[in-house]
Formats: sequence, structure tokens, C-alpha cells
Amino acid sequence: MVRSVNVAIVGAGLVGSAFINQLQSLRSHAITYNVILIARSTKALVSKSYAPLPLANWSQDLAASSPASGLSPGDLAAYLEKSPLPVILVDNTSSDALAKVYPVFLSQGVSIATPNKKAFSSELGLWNSLFSSAANFAAEPKGKGFLYHEATVGAGLPVISTIKDLVATGDEVVKVEGIVSGTLSYIFNEFSTLSGGAPVNFSDVVNKAKELGYTEPDPREDLNGLDVARKLTILARLAGLDVQSATSFPVQSLIPRPLEEIEAVSEFMAKLPEYDGKMEETRAKAAEEGKVLRFVGKIDLSGESAQKVKVGIEKYDAAHPFASLKGSDNVIAFYTKRYGKNPLIIQGAGAGSEVTAMGVLGDVLKIAERVAK
Amino acid sequence: MVRSVNVAIVGAGLVGSAFINQLQSLRSHAITYNVILIARSTKALVSKSYAPLPLANWSQDLAASSPASGLSPGDLAAYLEKSPLPVILVDNTSSDALAKVYPVFLSQGVSIATPNKKAFSSELGLWNSLFSSAANFAAEPKGKGFLYHEATVGAGLPVISTIKDLVATGDEVVKVEGIVSGTLSYIFNEFSTLSGGAPVNFSDVVNKAKELGYTEPDPREDLNGLDVARKLTILARLAGLDVQSATSFPVQSLIPRPLEEIEAVSEFMAKLPEYDGKMEETRAKAAEEGKVLRFVGKIDLSGESAQKVKVGIEKYDAAHPFASLKGSDNVIAFYTKRYGKNPLIIQGAGAGSEVTAMGVLGDVLKIAERVAK
Repeated sequence: MVRSVNVAIVGAGLVGSAFINQLQSLRSHAITYNVILIARSTKALVSKSYAPLPLANWSQDLAASSPASGLSPGDLAAYLEKSPLPVILVDNTSSDALAKVYPVFLSQGVSIATPNKKAFSSELGLWNSLFSSAANFAAEPKGKGFLYHEATVGAGLPVISTIKDLVATGDEVVKVEGIVSGTLSYIFNEFSTLSGGAPVNFSDVVNKAKELGYTEPDPREDLNGLDVARKLTILARLAGLDVQSATSFPVQSLIPRPLEEIEAVSEFMAKLPEYDGKMEETRAKAAEEGKVLRFVGKIDLSGESAQKVKVGIEKYDAAHPFASLKGSDNVIAFYTKRYGKNPLIIQGAGAGSEVTAMGVLGDVLKIAERVAK
Repeated sequence: MVRSVNVAIVGAGLVGSAFINQLQSLRSHAITYNVILIARSTKALVSKSYAPLPLANWSQDLAASSPASGLSPGDLAAYLEKSPLPVILVDNTSSDALAKVYPVFLSQGVSIATPNKKAFSSELGLWNSLFSSAANFAAEPKGKGFLYHEATVGAGLPVISTIKDLVATGDEVVKVEGIVSGTLSYIFNEFSTLSGGAPVNFSDVVNKAKELGYTEPDPREDLNGLDVARKLTILARLAGLDVQSATSFPVQSLIPRPLEEIEAVSEFMAKLPEYDGKMEETRAKAAEEGKVLRFVGKIDLSGESAQKVKVGIEKYDAAHPFASLKGSDNVIAFYTKRYGKNPLIIQGAGAGSEVTAMGVLGDVLKIAERVAK
């Protein structure tokens, strides 16, 4: 008996496209995945009869579709509510508006798999309402949808599932320490090396990262530390901390204060070299101690630190696993009561459309196992 | 609505006891776990009415119970079949006899969570029949039990779930390389160090590991490499290789050949120092190249290596993550098509009753979410 589930996909950029391709390539499986909707900002393919959409040319079909002027979150909810099969909504956007209505979808029995951090790292009220609306967290799960968000931290790396398992089985998280921005991992791995070769300018590394497509089109969205702060908010909340928002704890911005008011990216990039001296000073001082700089998020529940959550530059010995990180890899160390002195460490590519899509697809498979009919 | 599930626990040694304690300590949860059976080799507490057993003094109660002469795997199956609630069988033994009847339990709808490697690393026929009997793998899952075995490799580390997710989402495993024996991790981390201090004798390190309780009572059960071979068999099969058994590929034994026929542990330990010279030679040669020795399992599906699976001593550069491993930690690197050049790495304690029990409990929670009524 092959079971089936309907899948509605919002967001068809790099991650969305990779997700659709991976979903199409799934090999023999006891569950059939019927894609009934693919939407991006102004376009939408919607199966009015809830029959599976043909996917062979989905990208062209989507481009040729009429503007989706009518596809508000409310309309989406109304459409999904009438699905004859259980539905998984895949939110591959970074939309705040869509994230805010997750509780509506969940309450009406629609499950959600998403790499979108917004719902989980915005105000604490939304987080609480999410977790009372989702079947996998609510005390009264009947009729509610499941909510999975592995790819919100570390892309396809098993970060969210690991911290959830630790907490669910009664382990106590003492400390979490991680490099969770692929962009800032790359920048600091290049800028502050173990070999101690000829120093490079911080702004040159940022430029190179931008050219390689490792940064957002506006690198300040990486340099302001907010992406890391959002991920730390999610991890801290899962560890049991009531973090109010991603701006309620200290986050070090790598944007020099005098450049904060600049509007154009080009002007910002042109002026960034003026501040290389300050970064070089920090780097050289660490190097003198045999250490390297890394941009790290820290959660400390041990009571040793006055600041439970913080994000910024830290120094590490050459022997520390964070010091030998390569490329744009992420690394996360969980110190817990059961794991003791040596943390549980997860490391690997934490950004990129293929591994992000894989994290989302892994969630879709897990939800489908629970809801498919 | 609180849902419930029955739990039957076989094996009440170190891991079994830690498991029962962790299960009792579970905080507020939407699922109630009723323990209806606790058994070890000669004793058993069985709730004939299927009402939850009182657990406050389970250890004393079990010790005072009558000999469980009647509790054969068949009797266990007959008892569990009549459970009014869905049942999870927790096999905390290393019994081959129990493992062989997993397909019977699964076929009658009993789910299984276990750290017992036997069922997964013995002959290929049992593996295949397991995976056609379990609801989470069978094409016709209706009425069948679920089979989870996270703790068979790396204890509580998310190793099994990670390789399963990689494969299920369509990634291709190219290579897996890991230090998966806590005992041999400790022995080589002590014997072959980065610092290159005064060399220690291999037999002295084995003795120390034995005294610390890191080895089996008979250290030859660690030194023969079979535990590592069993774990590699499981990983290789999950990666898609039809490995016939844990002895169907090259496994380097650390037991000197002339000592293989010795019976008493004490005689073996007394004679082991005679072979320190050979190990020291290997260590010193690696040290000359700036490398350390580690006891590693390797799976190579790239086609580059004639031998797809092998277990034995390998040399690693100081900069390699395996070289800086500490204590008795495990580390596993997954090289896949999507992860590219830098592998997905999972590291941390891979042995010990608390983290092993946690791996089993994590599985029990996941099964319960799917079957509880």
C-alpha cells in the first residue's frame, strides 16, 4: 500500500529549485509526494483539483504562469485547508509575513518544513504560539500540523534534531558554541590563519567572499551578525532559554560604526578598507598569543558567564577544533551534562542550496512518515 | 489528550539501568510510557495485566523476582502480542538469540529500539529480513513495528540517523571514515600523541585502559577489531553495500598472532609486552612523518580503492581532525556528493552507559510519537 501526501512549495529561488529537483529524484519509496502548488513572489502554479502538478518543466511553467496577485497567506491557508490529502507546506522563503501565519496553518492541520528562520527567531510570542500550535509540541496534538525546521541552523547538518534529542531525553545543555555563518566562517578562516603567512586585509577578504557569491548581495547583511544572532536565538530557545528576540543580547557587528549610515553597497565597500587597521590589530594580537579569530555564537547556561547568549569575535588556540575549520564550514559544539568535558561536535557545510534543500527534504520525509495517508 | 505506549525492557545491566532511570526522569510529555516488563538473563518482572509496573524500586524488585525460566523469545513475543497498547521492545542486551527473532516481533506489530549490534551486523539474510519486516522500511508497512537502532554506532551520537537522512534524501555517500570504538580511541590517543613526548608501551596503555574500565573484561574483545567491524558493517549496509557479514572484509586484529591461542586473560596480558617493539616501530615511523596512528574503519564507494570496507591502523597528519581526538571520543566523517571536499563530521563520546541509554531513549521517543494511542 503506497501512501500519499500533498506538498505545497512557496519560494522557488536557489533553495526552492534544489528542493524540487531533489524531491523529483527521490528513489523508490513507500510514500508518493504530490506537488500541488509552487509559488514565488509574483508567480504561482496551483492545482485547483489537488491533482499532482506535472513537474518536468516546472520552472518554465512557473515563469509562464499568471501573476499570483491572489496568493496571500490567507488564500494559501484556504486552499490548503481543502486538500483531500494531508499537506506539507514547504516555506523556502525568508518571508516574515508567511512566518507570522504558521500558527494558522498548523492549527488547521497543515504541516510545515522550512529553512526560514523568521518564525523561530522573532519575538518570543510567535515562538510560543508556534509551539502550542504544532502537533509535535502541543499537549493536544490531535488535528494539528507538524513543524520541522532542521535547516534553520547549519543547513542540512543535524543540529536542530540533535539539540532537540538532547533536551527531550533529559540531558542538560551546559554550553553551546558555534560558527554558524558560512560567510563569516569563510571570511575568518581566510583572514586569521594558523599558518601565520603574510597578513591579508579584512576588506580584501570581504571583497573576495562577495565575488565568490559567499555573501548576500549586500555583505552588510552578513557582517551585521544578525544571521548568527537569529540562529543563536533558535538554539538558545531550544535549550530552554526564554530569549525575547534576536536583538535582546549582545551581538558584535563587523560594520564599522561610522559606516552604519551609508546607503549604497558600493560606497560601503569602498570605505571598508579605511578600517582594516583596527581588524589587523585584533588579528595580530591574537596571533602573538598563538591564537586565531573566529566569529562565534555562544550560549552559556552554566551560570559562569553573566551573559547567557552572545555573538561576536572570539580567540581560539591552534589545537581547538574551531581553529582548523576549512572553507565556509559550520561547526557546533554542544557541552552537556551527559557528554561531560568533551562536547558533541557537528561540523560540515552549513550553507549552500543543495545541503539546505536536503535539510528541508529530510524534514518533509519525516513529516510524511507521520501524516501520509 | 495524553497518548500512551507500553515499553518492555530486556537487559538491565549498565545501559539498561541508565535507560530505566532516564525514562523515569522524563519531564512533562504528551505521551505516557508504561513499563510492562523488565527482564535480564535469569530474572523478570512481568505485568500480567499489562498495567504499568511500579518503578520506584525496580532494581530490588527485579532481583527478588522468580527466575525467568519461561521467558524465551517466543514467550516474550506471545506476551507482547496481547498488549492492549502499542508496544516498544527495548533490547539492551547484546544477545544474538533475541536479535534473530526481531523479524517476528516486527511482523506482529511490536516496535524495537536497541543498541544491540547483532541483528544489524550478522549475516546479510537477517538484515534483509529485518528491513522487510519493519514498518519504517517495508513497502507494506501496515500492522508492522518500527525498528530504530541509533545507539548501535557512536552511542547517542546522531550517526545512524545522519547516514539514513543522507541516503533517503538522495545524497550519494562517497566515503565514510571513522574512529568508532571508544576503547581503541582511548588506547591510540594515549599511545600515539601529537606532542611526541616520551613514548609509552602499547601494553601499558592497554593495561591502563583495562584498569579504567574502558575495555571489556577481556580486552581482546576490543583488540580483535570485531566491534569496529560490526559497526562498519552497519554503516556500509546503510550506505548501500551488500556486506555479507562483519568478517567478510579485512579487519586488522591487534592481538599478536602467537597469542591468539591463549585462553586466560591474565596470561594474554602478561605476554602482550613481548610485542611492544613491533607497535613502537610502527608508531615511531609514523612520528617521523609527522603523523599519528589511529584505529579506523573505512568505507570507500568512490571506486578509488579496491577494498570497499576495511578496518585497521591508519596514519594521520597533525592537522587532521582524527589526530586531535581526545579521551575515548568517537569521530565519523561522511564524504558525500553534496558535501563535497569537506566532510560532514560528528564527534563526541561514543561509549558509556548514559550516552548509550540516551541514544536508545531518543529512539523510543521517536517510535512513541508514531505509534502511541
